[in-house]
Amino acid sequence: MRFTSETTSADGTTARDFVHDGVPGVLWTPAGTPSGLVLSAHGGGQHKRAPGITARAARCAAAGLAVVTLDAPGHGDRPRTTDDERFATEIRSRITSGHDAGALVAEYNALQAARAIPEWRSVLDALPATGESVGFWGVSMGAAIGIPLAAAEPRVRTAVFGLIGATEPLTEAAARITASVRFLLQWDDQLIARDAGLALFDAFATRQKSLHANPGGHGEVPEHELAGAVTLLAG
Amino acid sequence: MRFTSETTSADGTTARDFVHDGVPGVLWTPAGTPSGLVLSAHGGGQHKRAPGITARAARCAAAGLAVVTLDAPGHGDRPRTTDDERFATEIRSRITSGHDAGALVAEYNALQAARAIPEWRSVLDALPATGESVGFWGVSMGAAIGIPLAAAEPRVRTAVFGLIGATEPLTEAAARITASVRFLLQWDDQLIARDAGLALFDAFATRQKSLHANPGGHGEVPEHELAGAVTLLAG
Repeated sequence: MRFTSETTSADGTTARDFVHDGVPGVLWTPAGTPSGLVLSAHGGGQHKRAPGITARAARCAAAGLAVVTLDAPGHGDRPRTTDDERFATEIRSRITSGHDAGALVAEYNALQAARAIPEWRSVLDALPATGESVGFWGVSMGAAIGIPLAAAEPRVRTAVFGLIGATEPLTEAAARITASVRFLLQWDDQLIARDAGLALFDAFATRQKSLHANPGGHGEVPEHELAGAVTLLAG
Repeated sequence: MRFTSETTSADGTTARDFVHDGVPGVLWTPAGTPSGLVLSAHGGGQHKRAPGITARAARCAAAGLAVVTLDAPGHGDRPRTTDDERFATEIRSRITSGHDAGALVAEYNALQAARAIPEWRSVLDALPATGESVGFWGVSMGAAIGIPLAAAEPRVRTAVFGLIGATEPLTEAAARITASVRFLLQWDDQLIARDAGLALFDAFATRQKSLHANPGGHGEVPEHELAGAVTLLAG
């Protein structure tokens, strides 16, 4: 893990860019000793310093948590493969022409998970110690990566997922998860069918799971849920 | 409102039994000035000092809230009418013989709401001032009373409902509610069909609504949801 830059904000949180095995990421560390580490995965089309990801890191750091995020394959500062370009073009085209892009998104998400999971595990191995507790926070494509990651990675003890529906690989992975799960569902999500989200919540094997559903579309998770997710991960 | 007895617990919470227009109830008041008032309605077959109701009052009082509860019509210290006896017998008989008691429970709940709503409103008029904010907390039959109460009573600003499914009168009342609503759904509720609970959540008009679903049966709302409900009502 090679750190390339470091900035410290007014509250003492340090943000360090790094590259690990060719994957660029950011590690945020709060002032003082972190009480735990959160793996924060961004959504489709976003990147490691997208506004929502940076805001999430600031919230977590304020609660004493270290946060690491990575550019997903084909996102941010990473090269796009022919597959990345093809999926991006086709998904955009289906959405702008008013067609359902669900099957295509699910296919791309499965590809993303296969590529990203070894990267996340390798980063977790390489990180300096950041407390006992490891959490995961990712919704939409971030959850599509996080759900099979949590199924494979016993170090993840608490996870915030959501904004994603059941597919065969996700349901199968969810059925192997024993970590505590909070699942965020947007009641009026224009991209995820309500029943598909409910079916995925149903599939999680853990008894420590809660579904939190709120009015609004895909990108409109309310403020109180973001605060609540931090409380859960800091708990 | 005639107070008949008063006890004070170690933490300074005072519990006062009262009778108001023939309806027996309990008013819990925390040490110091209450920050708000919670109307706490018990479930079917329970009463004003059922263990869950007393525990709920203690939690709320510890958060600075006053709490008032009433024996529902035909419950606790109140006389049972012929209708109460008939419904109780028939509901018990259907449940013990393994039949679905849903339609009968819904019919009884509608009768309960019609009787209880004027009682709650009269108690709210009669109570000594207990802060600006009025909340409601009732699940199962308590929600069947609380949902039409909150639709009719603008003083109720925040409500915790749940463990109940859509019926025509409840859906119609929910569509008139503008208070903030938290709706608790037990994912494996043996008495309430999951779809019926989701349909009732869907019906609330307010945009300030959250569905919290957790594994377990009708009586198994997890500890963290009880704590979370208090935080919401105290907020």
